Amino acid sequence: MTLDVAARFLDDIRPAARNAPPSGIVEVHLEGLRRPGTAKLWVGEGNLPTPANIRDAAVRSLMAGETFYTHQAGLPELREALCRYHDRLYGPFGGRPADVDRFLVTASGMHAIQMAASLVAGSGDEVIVPTPAWPNAPAAAALCGAAVREVPMRFGPAGWDLDPDDLEAAITPRTRAIFVNSPSNPSGWVASRDRLASILGIARRHGVWIVADEVYGRFCYLDGQAVAPSFHEVAEPEDRLIFVNTFSKNWAMTGWRIGWIEVPAALNATVQNLVQYTSSGTAVFMQRAAVEALDNGEDFLAFQIARARHNRATVIAALAAAGGVTLSPPDGAFYLFFSVEGESDPRRLCLDMVREAGVGIAPGTAFGRGGERFMRLCFAGDPEEITAALGRLPAWLAARRRAAGGG
Amino acid sequence: MTLDVAARFLDDIRPAARNAPPSGIVEVHLEGLRRPGTAKLWVGEGNLPTPANIRDAAVRSLMAGETFYTHQAGLPELREALCRYHDRLYGPFGGRPADVDRFLVTASGMHAIQMAASLVAGSGDEVIVPTPAWPNAPAAAALCGAAVREVPMRFGPAGWDLDPDDLEAAITPRTRAIFVNSPSNPSGWVASRDRLASILGIARRHGVWIVADEVYGRFCYLDGQAVAPSFHEVAEPEDRLIFVNTFSKNWAMTGWRIGWIEVPAALNATVQNLVQYTSSGTAVFMQRAAVEALDNGEDFLAFQIARARHNRATVIAALAAAGGVTLSPPDGAFYLFFSVEGESDPRRLCLDMVREAGVGIAPGTAFGRGGERFMRLCFAGDPEEITAALGRLPAWLAARRRAAGGG
Repeated sequence: MTLDVAARFLDDIRPAARNAPPSGIVEVHLEGLRRPGTAKLWVGEGNLPTPANIRDAAVRSLMAGETFYTHQAGLPELREALCRYHDRLYGPFGGRPADVDRFLVTASGMHAIQMAASLVAGSGDEVIVPTPAWPNAPAAAALCGAAVREVPMRFGPAGWDLDPDDLEAAITPRTRAIFVNSPSNPSGWVASRDRLASILGIARRHGVWIVADEVYGRFCYLDGQAVAPSFHEVAEPEDRLIFVNTFSKNWAMTGWRIGWIEVPAALNATVQNLVQYTSSGTAVFMQRAAVEALDNGEDFLAFQIARARHNRATVIAALAAAGGVTLSPPDGAFYLFFSVEGESDPRRLCLDMVREAGVGIAPGTAFGRGGERFMRLCFAGDPEEITAALGRLPAWLAARRRAAGGG
Repeated sequence: MTLDVAARFLDDIRPAARNAPPSGIVEVHLEGLRRPGTAKLWVGEGNLPTPANIRDAAVRSLMAGETFYTHQAGLPELREALCRYHDRLYGPFGGRPADVDRFLVTASGMHAIQMAASLVAGSGDEVIVPTPAWPNAPAAAALCGAAVREVPMRFGPAGWDLDPDDLEAAITPRTRAIFVNSPSNPSGWVASRDRLASILGIARRHGVWIVADEVYGRFCYLDGQAVAPSFHEVAEPEDRLIFVNTFSKNWAMTGWRIGWIEVPAALNATVQNLVQYTSSGTAVFMQRAAVEALDNGEDFLAFQIARARHNRATVIAALAAAGGVTLSPPDGAFYLFFSVEGESDPRRLCLDMVREAGVGIAPGTAFGRGGERFMRLCFAGDPEEITAALGRLPAWLAARRRAAGGG
């Protein structure tokens, strides 16, 4: 195909599709894949396969021939298991046990975000995304035709925080939703219950939706806080609130593609229609595995959380030893977000690091305003690999400083 | 939740989401699920589970721990298997062997359609859909904000056909794409090679895209024609042409949710971005099964096709015997689309039929203009079940005629 023809095709498609940016994480990912032995700390997953009991549930279902179309909303058994899980985790929501009509199964956490975006925002609308943020949520809103307004969070001695005044100042008559991701990928920010209440207050005052991504809620390192604060603790079922979630992180199911969405029960039928016209449902054998994860996955999850906590300490100590590194210990999720003195181009730094030190991390430029000088390192993986990778970094950074004439 | 609150939520969401219609097939589906013993002829799937060799490939992958994130475009092995499959089926495309960069794996045929719609049409654009048509394609375009213009096909003694003049007359300056589904769900129409060439000519003249859904291409009942005519045989890789396809029908994988999209290679990176922001990829273990289906699924497919051909004869004969039925024997796919004299409300007829005769079929009202008085019966299933179900219909229809005073 000639370049002319290629250019014509790109001219010929819808601008929102043409302008969907490549994920800034993918570039390092591809570079790392070409280099066996690279520490894969750029991607949000660990090194363990899904636990055997969860895989076995899918295998049993496949062997039993559960390969037919199924409920648009998801298996009733899985939606009921989601209710049990939420009741166990957060207690009653607005004084009531979880309502199965609020829950629908999705074909991934990303699919949940895509449907949430599609529910609240289209052409002519605006959505607000506090940044730094995982780029996929704003990209999904942009694909729906909405304009994304970034609100940079503030980074200070106490770490990252979202200033409610900054948030409120960004609201316009076109604003339809605020995307809130706490614990945050990439910054590790965990909104306090008070902060969630103030965000909710702003949303209520202005009549806008909150899309709450609490995917990392189980990974919380705050003292005495086993689960990160949730909008479930400050809101009511009658609030304009959509939760998006996934099985990927808690149960090492990143490759499966299954998640869930929680919406006001009045929107159940509408979301079923969106499911029909996007994924048309999720494989039954995946859903059987998801039930097993919810009902019999807590031991594995506890192990994953303990391992992440251990790795977090390793990573913080190694970067402190390297010197010239700015970071705030993350209160949640499993990422360390840091900058390096004298390095203003983290994309360049990340590409050099994966090529020269065999350590792959993601440039902060992938995460929007406020994080441009930072990098994201995932510490969900193997402690030995992480210790080895972080062991290589101080010398490599020091050599780089020397080469740059920095002493 | 009070009715007021429920109404407020529906007021509060994006009109394109609120207005996404429930699939007209789902209503009968739900009614049928409540009645054990119902012949499930409303849905586009057979009664056989996925062949064991295909399921085994997924099981082996799961057992091996292939549960991690993977390539956005799909496994290279699967994309290469798709190239082999296309070369085998259609020979060279534009004189060249299939180009792996044209193929990407999707999280279902529906996902392929959704991305195709998202690629070509947004707010302010129009897409053309010849009807009767499977409702999900126009619904996906509408969700992207596009206006859907239906072009009713003509039904005559020789069956259904799309008049190219009707098609061309529907094109406006806002038209961005024509969705063409041949063999057609629901009508069984198979576009001749000449008809495809004339549609392509219109698209070329007006600079619009064709989205070609050839999902049922292997189910073709025309003499001496093992595979339905394809745009692969009349177009060039440089045409504005997007193919959407699925593993669901050929290999009894309806419940799996895996398909593929074929685009000009220049759009590969753009489609990868769309994958990232919709599904974020497809499970590796599903993709292993898909490779097995392409490489070692022809025997099963031949059996499925032979069974559908047998069932087609059964169904046509039974309806002819019932009397008062108008139909044209389908040239492809595995649906019979028929109307019943004196019955002007097929939705009512279908609901009565599922309740009283235990035969579930889909009302033509689900398929847009031109099919309103028709019903769709799927004959992909078990020959014994189909024979039994069709055996009940003549007496039931006769009793209904008598009750209506029709003699």
